[in-house]
Amino acid sequence: MATFCMQTLGCEVSAINTVNYSNHVGYKRFKGRKSTADEVAELYAGLKDAGLNNFDVLLSGYCPSAALVEQVGIIARERRLEANTSPGSFFWILDPVMGDNGQIYVAEETVPAYKSLLRDADLILPNQFEAELLSDVKIRDFDSMRQAIRKLHQTYQVPHVMITSVRLPPTQANTPSKEPHPASMAKLSVVGSSANSKGEPRMFRITVPALPVFFSGTGDMFSASLVARLREAAQHAGLLQTEHWQSPDDVQSADLPLAKATEKVLASMHIILKDTAEHYEVAAEKYRDSMDNQLNLGQGEEAKEAKEMERHLRLTRAAEVRVVRNAEVLRHPPDVGEFKAQAVEEGDVKGDHGEDDVADELGVLKVAGGDGAAHQT
Amino acid sequence: MATFCMQTLGCEVSAINTVNYSNHVGYKRFKGRKSTADEVAELYAGLKDAGLNNFDVLLSGYCPSAALVEQVGIIARERRLEANTSPGSFFWILDPVMGDNGQIYVAEETVPAYKSLLRDADLILPNQFEAELLSDVKIRDFDSMRQAIRKLHQTYQVPHVMITSVRLPPTQANTPSKEPHPASMAKLSVVGSSANSKGEPRMFRITVPALPVFFSGTGDMFSASLVARLREAAQHAGLLQTEHWQSPDDVQSADLPLAKATEKVLASMHIILKDTAEHYEVAAEKYRDSMDNQLNLGQGEEAKEAKEMERHLRLTRAAEVRVVRNAEVLRHPPDVGEFKAQAVEEGDVKGDHGEDDVADELGVLKVAGGDGAAHQT
Repeated sequence: MATFCMQTLGCEVSAINTVNYSNHVGYKRFKGRKSTADEVAELYAGLKDAGLNNFDVLLSGYCPSAALVEQVGIIARERRLEANTSPGSFFWILDPVMGDNGQIYVAEETVPAYKSLLRDADLILPNQFEAELLSDVKIRDFDSMRQAIRKLHQTYQVPHVMITSVRLPPTQANTPSKEPHPASMAKLSVVGSSANSKGEPRMFRITVPALPVFFSGTGDMFSASLVARLREAAQHAGLLQTEHWQSPDDVQSADLPLAKATEKVLASMHIILKDTAEHYEVAAEKYRDSMDNQLNLGQGEEAKEAKEMERHLRLTRAAEVRVVRNAEVLRHPPDVGEFKAQAVEEGDVKGDHGEDDVADELGVLKVAGGDGAAHQT
Repeated sequence: MATFCMQTLGCEVSAINTVNYSNHVGYKRFKGRKSTADEVAELYAGLKDAGLNNFDVLLSGYCPSAALVEQVGIIARERRLEANTSPGSFFWILDPVMGDNGQIYVAEETVPAYKSLLRDADLILPNQFEAELLSDVKIRDFDSMRQAIRKLHQTYQVPHVMITSVRLPPTQANTPSKEPHPASMAKLSVVGSSANSKGEPRMFRITVPALPVFFSGTGDMFSASLVARLREAAQHAGLLQTEHWQSPDDVQSADLPLAKATEKVLASMHIILKDTAEHYEVAAEKYRDSMDNQLNLGQGEEAKEAKEMERHLRLTRAAEVRVVRNAEVLRHPPDVGEFKAQAVEEGDVKGDHGEDDVADELGVLKVAGGDGAAHQT
């Protein structure tokens, strides 16, 4: 997913796999193996020996062990050092994949391993739970989110933060009615910030309609597309020779390159995911009836479980993100109209456009479905 | 290379790597490891367990051991059996990577391993030397090439054959002068054939200008692009439900789907390789002078060798095929004008368009450069 998205947006990619699986783990059945830190180190050494390690951007994602997280840090710091004399010539986008919805799905020692890397990252892409783990701030509203982001900017010196899933408890102002929102009305938000020269957050949010299906790989589609779009936006702003591509203090949050890039990425992704959801619904409908009938035939537990698994596999496949056949939409995003970034000012409870959508339970880029524990690979 | 080309042409790809290297071996420096037959078997078993193995097309390339060749055969035969009741629903394109220019660069036992797979392949993509190894016919002219292809069609039951490099010794009619051709005038040919119902070859050739640089990965760009284009041409001809996508006997060689598909692939590739060659020339020019000066400073042997290696690495990098930034050309081939397929009739010595280009020493899709022994990976 990540490699194709970057390539189709014009990036030359050297990919080092941190796992070699037959398929993504959302299927619950997969074979293959995790890479070791040594294997990753060896492949990077090979690139270096061949003079192929002068990357402009490093995108790092899921690491199956704390040792591998540390190895990624070694690579990134080495590149950072090499690029020292030429500001902006190396940019590290770090997706600290650790968990979601209050659950850690990596080894405990991975958390401090990621913390110790933050100082060298240019942009991090935690979801809300991961942002809490990294900042040690419990996020309950925009105020505490600002605190968390400020801590990441100031204590950990991370210039750019993007929280890829926002799931805030209802506030007094926007307690939802007892009726659940119909899925078609659900919204989800991402919140980003680029620090100003004092380390103060410049926060923006973008809200998009949520889709009622879990699509594995959307996190990687987001981060990979952001690599290309952020570089483009930074170039447009004349920041490619500026350390961390950091915008001058007079740039307002909604005008940040990070905001502009994210608008485009989300506008493209929404169309691709909508097409995927439509395809999924057709496929799901087809299996549903026949499967339901089979499940009610009063078979033994084992046969029932096998049928359930079969159904899960088919639905997971139907939910595979249709990115290859929609690559044109990645390359040429539609008008960003409804995906415009909105400034989030100090003291804002609900953002500045007066909607109550941040209170939605469905507020995730990866909308949780049957396999919410799926890793990004 | 192969995965991206197929994806950008709209194919959903499950890739199983037969090697995991840091970079292609044309650099002469690389790290990483070969996959074992067991690893490939395990990943395929994983796909099967998850219900993800119902491929329309299998493209198999370089295998680092005879055991791995056999493993690929096991996978292909299994799919063939499953697809038995539904003709045309599975198509195997086999690139029997064994050597080039009279040199085998895989283990000897790989040759019989490939021979035993031929019966299950739909299309094979040997270069001239590999076609000789598989058919046991020495190819000296179009007559002997027809014999080799006939043997592959009849004895080994391969419906479609594409010889991806043609390098015939000079005939009386077209003995080249002592002067070498200037590189810009060199030509190269591919020769393809789809058997008719009697197993007789329907041979065509396409001649394209050769470029004086070795580009690693062109073989994979060719085979991967052909996957998408051949399926498209077969669909256009209404052959997707026909076993082996075999054309009726009244279809002439130059009108075969294989010919139509190859025209498009070569037309796209030529533009991409021309752009790569131009980029290479600029880069090479830049290094040449400074390097030459450094090489003549009368240093010790070791320092000289290091400089030579450095130069080789840089030039190899400059020759990396610029496919990502030219993907649009793959997706939308130019007019195939000069790449029109020409029938090769029984008794033809030079093909039907009267040029002597088949005699060129440079007649390869992968034009041999400094690293002619580079594997396709």
